[in-house]
Amino acid sequence: MTEIYYTLESEVRSYSRSWPAEFVKASGATQTAADGTEYLDFFAGAGALNYGHNNPVFMEPLIAYLQSGQVLHSMDMKTPAKRKFLETFKSRILDPRGLNYKVMFPGPTGTNTVEAALKLARKYTGRQHILSFTNAFHGMTLGSLSVTGNSMKREGAGIPLTNSSKIPYDDYFDGETADFLWLERVLEDSGSGVDKPAAIIVETVQGEGGVRAARAEWLRGLAELCRRHDILLIVDDVQAGCGRTGTFFSFEEAGIVPDIVCLSKSISGSGLPLALTLFRPELDIWSPGEHNGTFRGNNPAFVTATAAIEEFWADDSFQQELAGKIELLQSRLERIAFSASGAGVRGRGMFGGIIFEDAELAGKIAAEAYRNGLLVETSGPKDEVVKLLPPLTVTREELDRGLDILAAAVAAVAPAPTAAEAAAASA
Amino acid sequence: MTEIYYTLESEVRSYSRSWPAEFVKASGATQTAADGTEYLDFFAGAGALNYGHNNPVFMEPLIAYLQSGQVLHSMDMKTPAKRKFLETFKSRILDPRGLNYKVMFPGPTGTNTVEAALKLARKYTGRQHILSFTNAFHGMTLGSLSVTGNSMKREGAGIPLTNSSKIPYDDYFDGETADFLWLERVLEDSGSGVDKPAAIIVETVQGEGGVRAARAEWLRGLAELCRRHDILLIVDDVQAGCGRTGTFFSFEEAGIVPDIVCLSKSISGSGLPLALTLFRPELDIWSPGEHNGTFRGNNPAFVTATAAIEEFWADDSFQQELAGKIELLQSRLERIAFSASGAGVRGRGMFGGIIFEDAELAGKIAAEAYRNGLLVETSGPKDEVVKLLPPLTVTREELDRGLDILAAAVAAVAPAPTAAEAAAASA
Amino acid sequence: MTEIYYTLESEVRSYSRSWPAEFVKASGATQTAADGTEYLDFFAGAGALNYGHNNPVFMEPLIAYLQSGQVLHSMDMKTPAKRKFLETFKSRILDPRGLNYKVMFPGPTGTNTVEAALKLARKYTGRQHILSFTNAFHGMTLGSLSVTGNSMKREGAGIPLTNSSKIPYDDYFDGETADFLWLERVLEDSGSGVDKPAAIIVETVQGEGGVRAARAEWLRGLAELCRRHDILLIVDDVQAGCGRTGTFFSFEEAGIVPDIVCLSKSISGSGLPLALTLFRPELDIWSPGEHNGTFRGNNPAFVTATAAIEEFWADDSFQQELAGKIELLQSRLERIAFSASGAGVRGRGMFGGIIFEDAELAGKIAAEAYRNGLLVETSGPKDEVVKLLPPLTVTREELDRGLDILAAAVAAVAPAPTAAEAAAASA
Amino acid sequence: MTEIYYTLESEVRSYSRSWPAEFVKASGATQTAADGTEYLDFFAGAGALNYGHNNPVFMEPLIAYLQSGQVLHSMDMKTPAKRKFLETFKSRILDPRGLNYKVMFPGPTGTNTVEAALKLARKYTGRQHILSFTNAFHGMTLGSLSVTGNSMKREGAGIPLTNSSKIPYDDYFDGETADFLWLERVLEDSGSGVDKPAAIIVETVQGEGGVRAARAEWLRGLAELCRRHDILLIVDDVQAGCGRTGTFFSFEEAGIVPDIVCLSKSISGSGLPLALTLFRPELDIWSPGEHNGTFRGNNPAFVTATAAIEEFWADDSFQQELAGKIELLQSRLERIAFSASGAGVRGRGMFGGIIFEDAELAGKIAAEAYRNGLLVETSGPKDEVVKLLPPLTVTREELDRGLDILAAAVAAVAPAPTAAEAAAASA
Repeated sequence: MTEIYYTLESEVRSYSRSWPAEFVKASGATQTAADGTEYLDFFAGAGALNYGHNNPVFMEPLIAYLQSGQVLHSMDMKTPAKRKFLETFKSRILDPRGLNYKVMFPGPTGTNTVEAALKLARKYTGRQHILSFTNAFHGMTLGSLSVTGNSMKREGAGIPLTNSSKIPYDDYFDGETADFLWLERVLEDSGSGVDKPAAIIVETVQGEGGVRAARAEWLRGLAELCRRHDILLIVDDVQAGCGRTGTFFSFEEAGIVPDIVCLSKSISGSGLPLALTLFRPELDIWSPGEHNGTFRGNNPAFVTATAAIEEFWADDSFQQELAGKIELLQSRLERIAFSASGAGVRGRGMFGGIIFEDAELAGKIAAEAYRNGLLVETSGPKDEVVKLLPPLTVTREELDRGLDILAAAVAAVAPAPTAAEAAAASA
Repeated sequence: MTEIYYTLESEVRSYSRSWPAEFVKASGATQTAADGTEYLDFFAGAGALNYGHNNPVFMEPLIAYLQSGQVLHSMDMKTPAKRKFLETFKSRILDPRGLNYKVMFPGPTGTNTVEAALKLARKYTGRQHILSFTNAFHGMTLGSLSVTGNSMKREGAGIPLTNSSKIPYDDYFDGETADFLWLERVLEDSGSGVDKPAAIIVETVQGEGGVRAARAEWLRGLAELCRRHDILLIVDDVQAGCGRTGTFFSFEEAGIVPDIVCLSKSISGSGLPLALTLFRPELDIWSPGEHNGTFRGNNPAFVTATAAIEEFWADDSFQQELAGKIELLQSRLERIAFSASGAGVRGRGMFGGIIFEDAELAGKIAAEAYRNGLLVETSGPKDEVVKLLPPLTVTREELDRGLDILAAAVAAVAPAPTAAEAAAASA
Repeated sequence: MTEIYYTLESEVRSYSRSWPAEFVKASGATQTAADGTEYLDFFAGAGALNYGHNNPVFMEPLIAYLQSGQVLHSMDMKTPAKRKFLETFKSRILDPRGLNYKVMFPGPTGTNTVEAALKLARKYTGRQHILSFTNAFHGMTLGSLSVTGNSMKREGAGIPLTNSSKIPYDDYFDGETADFLWLERVLEDSGSGVDKPAAIIVETVQGEGGVRAARAEWLRGLAELCRRHDILLIVDDVQAGCGRTGTFFSFEEAGIVPDIVCLSKSISGSGLPLALTLFRPELDIWSPGEHNGTFRGNNPAFVTATAAIEEFWADDSFQQELAGKIELLQSRLERIAFSASGAGVRGRGMFGGIIFEDAELAGKIAAEAYRNGLLVETSGPKDEVVKLLPPLTVTREELDRGLDILAAAVAAVAPAPTAAEAAAASA
Repeated sequence: MTEIYYTLESEVRSYSRSWPAEFVKASGATQTAADGTEYLDFFAGAGALNYGHNNPVFMEPLIAYLQSGQVLHSMDMKTPAKRKFLETFKSRILDPRGLNYKVMFPGPTGTNTVEAALKLARKYTGRQHILSFTNAFHGMTLGSLSVTGNSMKREGAGIPLTNSSKIPYDDYFDGETADFLWLERVLEDSGSGVDKPAAIIVETVQGEGGVRAARAEWLRGLAELCRRHDILLIVDDVQAGCGRTGTFFSFEEAGIVPDIVCLSKSISGSGLPLALTLFRPELDIWSPGEHNGTFRGNNPAFVTATAAIEEFWADDSFQQELAGKIELLQSRLERIAFSASGAGVRGRGMFGGIIFEDAELAGKIAAEAYRNGLLVETSGPKDEVVKLLPPLTVTREELDRGLDILAAAVAAVAPAPTAAEAAAASA
């Protein structure tokens, strides 16, 4: 029955290899396979399903909208659905946070908002160079790929990736060197050969790069450094945004205000494709149509996005409830990491990870977890990190249950801690 | 009420400038504005709505799917919706046409399928150069933009666009020179300085470029030339595909078989974001995940795509009915063009255009048409072409009514034909 | 004795393969091998020895200079030798031709003057794209290589060559298409995708490209087109300049005034390394030291350059005498070409060539000529052209003698003309 | 009389601005101006005159050669002068040092040998990326410029410089971080986004970059790291080679063997243009003529190069004598640096520098030195270093005299050391 996946679909497919089940139902944190097996989904569409699968919060207005005869596809034309989204995004997200951003619809994918951000930064500054970080992931189209770190994905371009340089992410040298030593030095040194960039693009938590979370003070240092050197700061909040770290934008904790923000994945709430590029009004020097795209006016996505924002971000109750789940997740991850040799905790908020010195363990643990009904993926340059993106709407019971499966998988696959590790853990 | 469009949305918006109405309903070929005005929509989502707005053919299964609790968002995992789409696409589209293609889901937009095609061509051939045509439009991300012609859009990149050269499209020299003279010569001449390309990418009808339709014999010549020189042929069928020219693929009339085909826009039927990259099985040398994207598994789009294919392409009745409408469209366009000085017909199938020597006329005619209830856009390097993309499901009555509005707009705005033109027209 | 050439010198060597003799003496148009064999040198240092080997005209002042204790190497510092060169170049070359150029010493090689010209054109216009011609040769460093045509040499870069496009040289389509059809069209068409260039760089006679001489009216058309489109015109006169075509600058016959001129090879007269970049004073917006180089102040080269200019270009006697030799060369080349099947004459002035339809013949003829005491090289993308660069100071007797050897080699190697060719020749 | 320098020569001239004298004689370490003023030349053609001006050692054979009627200009053809150079270079330079290199003549300038090295490294490895160091200087043509650090010179390109990244030179972080921390990390991390390079290019002493000398152990670490990661090591010995640091090659002290070595400047001994590219025999995969150039066979330069090598490098007497002068230079530089506030010594061997915290002082000191008869230039990203390149053949008396002038200039211009500095100096 599923033969066609193998005979017709390209070899480029990936998740369907690790998780070969055909999924026939989905609700909240659960996906159900064709054979009736239920899986707790701590992958959540790689962060596109922060509010869970088929949440009535957005499914009901979505179905109502489709039944109403209103416009489904509208390019950049005006529709009430788009207007309400803009109004809601302004009143519920931007205004309460004191953010004065223009909103651009750059095409409905993460890579598209990154491409738009890079274009705008270059156009505004007249500079051509972009700095991005080791282990960054920003997307698969040529511009986004050039600021991405993963060598396998970079080689897919088939041509040299130009006009950008890499700089070390927070703690890239395991504390052996001061933050920004390299960056400050090359920016101040007119002989460094690192051309002054239009912008620095950063993820506050690097998901694909191995669930590396930058510290708040590092982010503040970065923002300050950009300000001092007149460089635009772009936060790619495609995966870490929309509540994933505990606040709507992942940079709120650090108290910084980026010049440009990229949103996608969970911005529609429902998993329908949508992306936004936000930027300071002074930067809005686009010519009409200078960047465009057929699916910018995905009204079903506007409808679900509006519903999700109204439900979860109209006041701070969701955020507070989330804080409790984050505490639970982080404390359990620590205990799981302590239970294995060479393991450590990664991440921030509901963006969790366990890294293994023996990189192969991560994949084995994810496979074992799948066999026991939990979807978790791996990430990092060697796929050495088990990456957890449970829906933010997961119940505490589901969270515990999923983490029980994970703990058992770690116990089954990874070696027990050494005596020294155990002593350190109990200290 | 609509102030937020101007204060919050970026200046990059374009269609909402020409068509300032807020559209509150849409059905078939008609959109209704907030004030109740009805507009015949001969723009059809820039070709994304070939089956009209909110066609029950796909809206009913879409709503039923959303009510069923099945998976909405699934990355590249297996779902029955995806499986049925693959099966239907194979049995109704590929097999009857004798096409043996692998199917890749590259992310749900036109530019994403083009980027995937360029990567694959470079990876497969080990060459880095791509040839594309004057006035081509392939998308807004960096790789697609590098093979696009429009100078305003190219400058938006803010960096030099590299690794591609431009070659003249069919009749670029108004018949003054033989087809492929330049291309043949540079490929055969090892001193030409035009590096041997991995691929040539072509639209069979250049929509954004001014509704230029390549002749079938020219396309055959191009395919033959690619074969002879061991160059991959990529057909970007994002706008011209899915029936727009009268057959499912726009290259069927020419009888060629491209190595790679890019589909998007109307492939979902409904206007929901979806894109495919098709290629010969030998080319399927991707590593798993070498190109990826969050919204590849847009199940609602699979559902509507399947419904649309079953309805319109299970047999040849739709295509035959379409042939009649195409005849009507083309003959009326000719008459309209004859009625004005310096006007000419462009296009093929239901992909129509009228070009004006005085480029400003096209915009004035589109504006006049809008005032009288017809949505038509302009295209071409100087926006000198009135471009018509009526839904393929438009009724003959609607088609006539829309063309009446267009004819009246031409009469109101453009100068009458000169005596010489009138004589030529009647000849 | 000569083993070290094979064991120590890199495989990149080329001329020493075709002409394995070790040359121990040289005078005028003659080089003498170690075994006493004399060779007429119609290669002349690839155009660097327009006044012959070891001409007393420059050797005497050179030796006197070296004996005088004056400065040999001076970067861009002031020396009397440099001053006299500047004065002589102005009074004997620039002023009589009404040329108001600034003079830059960009480093002493042809590729260096081309790199300086490209930089300046980009800096002055703020544009990044350069157009160059099919079969162009401008040098081996990365910038010059990017505007060069030969595929073997281009591949030597090991990276994509960017920021330039190729356009067809005069008669590239064998008269089948109008001059500048492609160029005019893409420059006027904002959708062409050929980015507006900073400059067009051209050789009036393409030496490496196969001794293709552009017609004067074509050059005028090119200059006019550049003027109309506000594009800088760079003439690379490295090989065709310094009298090679019958006038000092190769563009004098066409009556055009390029914005930038590149000179090297015979500018020193003696074969000592020297290069100049000339440009209109408005273009002189360099910052001090923005382009530099260690060997810009090669005073021995200034001395021989001054002597050569004073001897040959102080009045028009040399040019008039040259005209006679050019007539002799061209008429004999025609006769030789008529004597073989599939042969044709190429070139202009003392820059001659015979092209063979059967490309391999050219190499065989050059080899046969070498066996009989004549040095001639081949050029063109397939090495299909026998290329003749006799010293301009060659005597009529030597010219005749060399051409006799060439004629005999053609007779020995190439097939006799067909009856049809013979009839056409006598017509 | 010198007006023509200002009216005719391009604004790009630089040294003639700091040193406006016209130099009419030169001998050894002395240049004489038109008004009879003598200048000690501690600039020495930016390192091209290591054996002084007009040294009879090479002037006599040069004049004899020119009087002999032998070949002056010979492309890559065989001549006794070239043969003798190859033999001498092998027997006196390569063999005694156990170096098994092929010798390539890439065109007679420093930038040409660097371009050849980069091409070969890319061709041999099939990789496209090159790593170079902060504050590196490798030349002004596009390939060399892309691996150069200076921002003013980089901007001169007018296009983005691609296919290379910068890495920190020895002690770039003032001892705050371990050597190679960044480099090791990015090479080992497949997610770093720094593409694996074909080669790393390094100067053992960065002249233009501010007379920064890498430590021997750092160079060994670099060579070891290249070996471990299968990356080619290119030493650009254009300025630091030919005895400047106390040994023929600057890397001898560190005991490393680079894969490719670039030589130019003083390789001809006389200041005549010449350059070599040396590489391991396995790397000699060039096609004939794949890199070429008109002035590769500069026989006068071969003659003087041979004479200089025979005179100075046939045994170790020159090197030993040099050691004494180096000691003198370094000890006096230390004393001079101690005599001023915020000054420090830079360099290695006869490649000396004094750096000033207050960057403007360096220029003022050089100007004051010039007024008192000493030519010294400045270098470094802010021109903050007084750079000394006395001829290696300078007498101890001349060296003392020049350093007296420098010491006086420092005393006149720079502030006296603070009490703390004075105490530290005497400790």
